[in-house]
Amino acid sequence: MRNIRLLLQYDGTRYQGWQRQESNENTIQGRLERLLGRMCGEEIELQGSGRTDAGVHARGQVANFHTSSAMSTEEMFDYINRYLPEDIAVLKVTEASERFHSRLNATGKRYQYLVHNGAAPDVFLRRYAIEEPGRLDLGAMRKAAGCLEGEHDFKAFTSAKKSKKSTIRRIDEVRIEKEGELLRFTFQGNGFLFHMVRILMGTLLEVGRGERSVEDVKRLLEGAGRDQAGPLADAKGLTLMEVYYE
Amino acid sequence: MRNIRLLLQYDGTRYQGWQRQESNENTIQGRLERLLGRMCGEEIELQGSGRTDAGVHARGQVANFHTSSAMSTEEMFDYINRYLPEDIAVLKVTEASERFHSRLNATGKRYQYLVHNGAAPDVFLRRYAIEEPGRLDLGAMRKAAGCLEGEHDFKAFTSAKKSKKSTIRRIDEVRIEKEGELLRFTFQGNGFLFHMVRILMGTLLEVGRGERSVEDVKRLLEGAGRDQAGPLADAKGLTLMEVYYE
Repeated sequence: MRNIRLLLQYDGTRYQGWQRQESNENTIQGRLERLLGRMCGEEIELQGSGRTDAGVHARGQVANFHTSSAMSTEEMFDYINRYLPEDIAVLKVTEASERFHSRLNATGKRYQYLVHNGAAPDVFLRRYAIEEPGRLDLGAMRKAAGCLEGEHDFKAFTSAKKSKKSTIRRIDEVRIEKEGELLRFTFQGNGFLFHMVRILMGTLLEVGRGERSVEDVKRLLEGAGRDQAGPLADAKGLTLMEVYYE
Repeated sequence: MRNIRLLLQYDGTRYQGWQRQESNENTIQGRLERLLGRMCGEEIELQGSGRTDAGVHARGQVANFHTSSAMSTEEMFDYINRYLPEDIAVLKVTEASERFHSRLNATGKRYQYLVHNGAAPDVFLRRYAIEEPGRLDLGAMRKAAGCLEGEHDFKAFTSAKKSKKSTIRRIDEVRIEKEGELLRFTFQGNGFLFHMVRILMGTLLEVGRGERSVEDVKRLLEGAGRDQAGPLADAKGLTLMEVYYE
């Protein structure tokens, strides 16, 4: 069997997230599997590097599937992009080694969160950025972001039900860039728990508004529970930018 | 009567252009006039700096209307943005001098055209850029763009029916910037004829593809007819960026 690797881009606005669901909901994985099944003439199971929530976007999602189809990767690229809806696209189709697994082999991920910090709305950012019109203390947010870097127990920053699985992850960088009224947050690390980036963002916004201190963020990394961290930030501002492999 | 000036932003994707129409089509001016009428409790005629075609976007459209309403400009700003659809926003509401007229007083305009020049699609640009996947000769396009600058008779570059009105306009700058796969064209001048920017863009794309020479573009400025210039470029790539006043 061939193992085909896809580099995917999608605008998550219209979708119920990545993961296929039993109910007939509109998901990215479901859409792609139906299309790939028609293309290959066999049932296809598409493995993504990870799930993205409803409304979350991707510029560099990676997925792979096994098939006995004889189509060339160029033919697949053209077929998939011809039949995909306007808000999903495949950027690359490549032949992967037999054992490549888009989730298990991932060594890290990079996410971007956009925050529009302006008095007037921006119609071009409404689907892609959180609206946060009030004053934000960037200095305090940068200090708190610095505390998040490194290896920590992030169990305060996940909605995952209690489980035996480790909640220790390493965040390599949390960068905050300001471009006029647009704030760009970059989160890069070796792995992220369920809802982790959205809770980190919701917590950093509390720091920016002066509702939470930098010291308090440090405390959250010392075994605090989910109820002590900030709320889930709006999904629409979040984009999966890149998945890293060896 | 007070004279109120609006700075407007809109995503033109869903609209039949700026201009109100007898038929019940969805236009920017129609949407705004109905809303302003409810706000002021009187019939409002909104004067725009110019029409934008169906699908064309704006980041700096200017319009004005007269009213006897006693509302403050801050109250108007909040009311309008609360009731406008997500793809239209007012960025500023200001008191204008009695004689200010957004179209007649405009001394110039700046437009932006985005062209996505990549092999793979980009879902985030699909509503905002022309897709032009093939090779483009930027050098030749820049030479042709240079020929357009200055005062010329642009009658080859308008769809307007023959009329006594002058077709002479001055273009101050046609700038072409490359950001990866994205080409940004900036057109600034003292005024633009009906469809002029779209025909200029369609003609520059022919030059980029090698279908038309730079010399030929010069010839078009020496009294050629509409039939000799290039086609209308797709409206979705065009954005009205700024309107200039004394």
